[in-house]
Amino acid sequence: MPRVNELWHRLPESPTRALDRLLEALGRRDIVNLAAGRPGLRPPDWVLEWLADRLASGGLEPFGYTPSGGLMEAREAVAEDIWETGGPRVSWEEVILTAGGQSSVAAALHALGRAGGRVLLVEPTWFSYEPLIRSAGMEPVFVTAEPPDYRLPEEAVKEAVESGVSMILLADPDNPTGRLLTEGEARLLAELAVDHDIWLIVDEPYRTLVYEGSKVYPARYAPDHVVGVGAFSKDPGIPGWRLGYAYGPPEAIKAMERFVEYTVYCPPRPAQELVAMYLRDPRKREFRRMFQLEYRKRRDTLLKALAELAPEAGYSKPPAGMFVYADVSRYTGRGRGVTVRFAEHALRSAGVAVIPGEFFGPRQAGRLRLTFTYEPGERLVEGVRRLATALNSFKI
Amino acid sequence: MPRVNELWHRLPESPTRALDRLLEALGRRDIVNLAAGRPGLRPPDWVLEWLADRLASGGLEPFGYTPSGGLMEAREAVAEDIWETGGPRVSWEEVILTAGGQSSVAAALHALGRAGGRVLLVEPTWFSYEPLIRSAGMEPVFVTAEPPDYRLPEEAVKEAVESGVSMILLADPDNPTGRLLTEGEARLLAELAVDHDIWLIVDEPYRTLVYEGSKVYPARYAPDHVVGVGAFSKDPGIPGWRLGYAYGPPEAIKAMERFVEYTVYCPPRPAQELVAMYLRDPRKREFRRMFQLEYRKRRDTLLKALAELAPEAGYSKPPAGMFVYADVSRYTGRGRGVTVRFAEHALRSAGVAVIPGEFFGPRQAGRLRLTFTYEPGERLVEGVRRLATALNSFKI
Repeated sequence: MPRVNELWHRLPESPTRALDRLLEALGRRDIVNLAAGRPGLRPPDWVLEWLADRLASGGLEPFGYTPSGGLMEAREAVAEDIWETGGPRVSWEEVILTAGGQSSVAAALHALGRAGGRVLLVEPTWFSYEPLIRSAGMEPVFVTAEPPDYRLPEEAVKEAVESGVSMILLADPDNPTGRLLTEGEARLLAELAVDHDIWLIVDEPYRTLVYEGSKVYPARYAPDHVVGVGAFSKDPGIPGWRLGYAYGPPEAIKAMERFVEYTVYCPPRPAQELVAMYLRDPRKREFRRMFQLEYRKRRDTLLKALAELAPEAGYSKPPAGMFVYADVSRYTGRGRGVTVRFAEHALRSAGVAVIPGEFFGPRQAGRLRLTFTYEPGERLVEGVRRLATALNSFKI
Repeated sequence: MPRVNELWHRLPESPTRALDRLLEALGRRDIVNLAAGRPGLRPPDWVLEWLADRLASGGLEPFGYTPSGGLMEAREAVAEDIWETGGPRVSWEEVILTAGGQSSVAAALHALGRAGGRVLLVEPTWFSYEPLIRSAGMEPVFVTAEPPDYRLPEEAVKEAVESGVSMILLADPDNPTGRLLTEGEARLLAELAVDHDIWLIVDEPYRTLVYEGSKVYPARYAPDHVVGVGAFSKDPGIPGWRLGYAYGPPEAIKAMERFVEYTVYCPPRPAQELVAMYLRDPRKREFRRMFQLEYRKRRDTLLKALAELAPEAGYSKPPAGMFVYADVSRYTGRGRGVTVRFAEHALRSAGVAVIPGEFFGPRQAGRLRLTFTYEPGERLVEGVRRLATALNSFKI
């Protein structure tokens, strides 16, 4: 067999992928899934009914290609929604659709980065950023945010930017910490991007999953230096349908559009049709209020169960997103790889899936990411019960 | 604004994309579209009805992520379909699903190629191969197939491979010529790949659109050196839903799966669900017979109209695919760029869209690609009437 490309071959499998395969290997056992980064609610019936009718009666059109950057009406709907929810005013030409949030991030890194560049990450951070950065021929540079609430480490960020990076990449609301940038933090990041003429990529897939406070859009303070990316995986809840978006300066968006064109030709149409309809229907607001209430309730259920059943765990209440990021080092210690071993123990011995801290950065042993959006309330309590059993039986 | 990546920024827009924008600019005018590479039939109602029911009643599952390489049952269905239609026997682990045919080709080039490598193309060839090759940091090397039937230029291919290429990439059935590789040609390509230990990438999106003769699968003769790629855009007809596939040696497939994982995370689920159901339903055979008959009829309608209305055009009857590749140089000459100017003239003055030969390779001026699958019969005749008007009124 001829050789394969070493770069792609060497990239690690995503930990959620590895977990899915482990879950599959465990077969039909009852597992409480606190690991998946998935919504726990279906898209609203009214939009699904509309789509079914569209497919039945729309002739060839609902099956056809769309422009590389997506249907104009869908891009307009995204631009309006960003404005309506407190983001910058952008035109439809400053928005492209992509094949999901991961595709948006990949497009930003490949189309805006250059080989050898350094990308600043604020640890703990989403586990796929590092391999995505490497796939674009770049290197990550880490600064560390500290518990309990993982505020942006402003001095460390400034120093790292001054030492020379070509991009800053972070999620807001954050994965795994649930941190929501303050206006001061958003302004600081925007100013650093302008002062050093570098890109600030803000990944915003949870921008409508906010339970306390408000999402602040850094793009408002530096429209020529910020690219916002996001997805419709969580809201309205179509992760497997693969639709994301990006907005920013036209030249950046055009380069990213080429990446989409040459890797997938166009974003998948069923999701575009669904999202264009969803975002423009007034019932969207009611649906959002519903899932915000439901997810907040699930978060509070998880936190209450944690306080009762795993009293030595440390965490703060995340104001947004899908995750509680818990320090369990009083149970496990902080040894390198210890929570990776713990997560396997919890899955096999207690039937609960969690993501170990090690996946979120080099200094994250002793921590766990717990999803509160996917399982319904009573299953969350059961999951924490199993987690507590695993913590108490774990031998370091 | 910070810089963007020159490679992605410099890649040309796909000519079908540029055409779509031109069509849009021309507004509501009646245009006969002989340019689009699209099917002219909807997927069968029985599979759409099944999907609508699945979305309505399947809980969270039909919206969720799938494995990076696609749902196991969809991969199994693809493996069975390849075997059933005369291809190699592959297991589901030797198949991955991708976000469309373009994504399959991109995955093969990025995951199996290496920067600086040379990729052999047989001109005329699909216009996106060259920029896709360049996006992976490689260079195309052209050999030329000659009219009227554009057989594989065996000696030139051998010489080029001996001079050093790391991959051969071609479509079978071919775009734009409709050439179907003979068993001898398929064996020759397979042997060259084995003898020189290089990859042979065979792009097979039209493998079931065969009207005379049979599709021969080169992978049967060199399973360790051939990667077959394809798509479901034409059969069952969901181009905008973005689903393609690749099959080949497990290590190659694994590297390509990483490319899919890091560019789109997983292939879009609605298309996977639809295709898994479609490929395993016995009504598939009847649907295929129906569209094969219909497309053959459309091809014959187009050819008959060409013979009558543009008697100086040269072409052969394509046994497969979606296109007639016609030599119109008796009307236009062979000057560099002449058919690009002609295509614009035909669109603006006569209201018919065609793709100029120049897009298919460096020596293709004076030729045109005409799609026979997209427009129904009477529109094809009208399209050729308009084309003849444009040919007769064109000033070189």
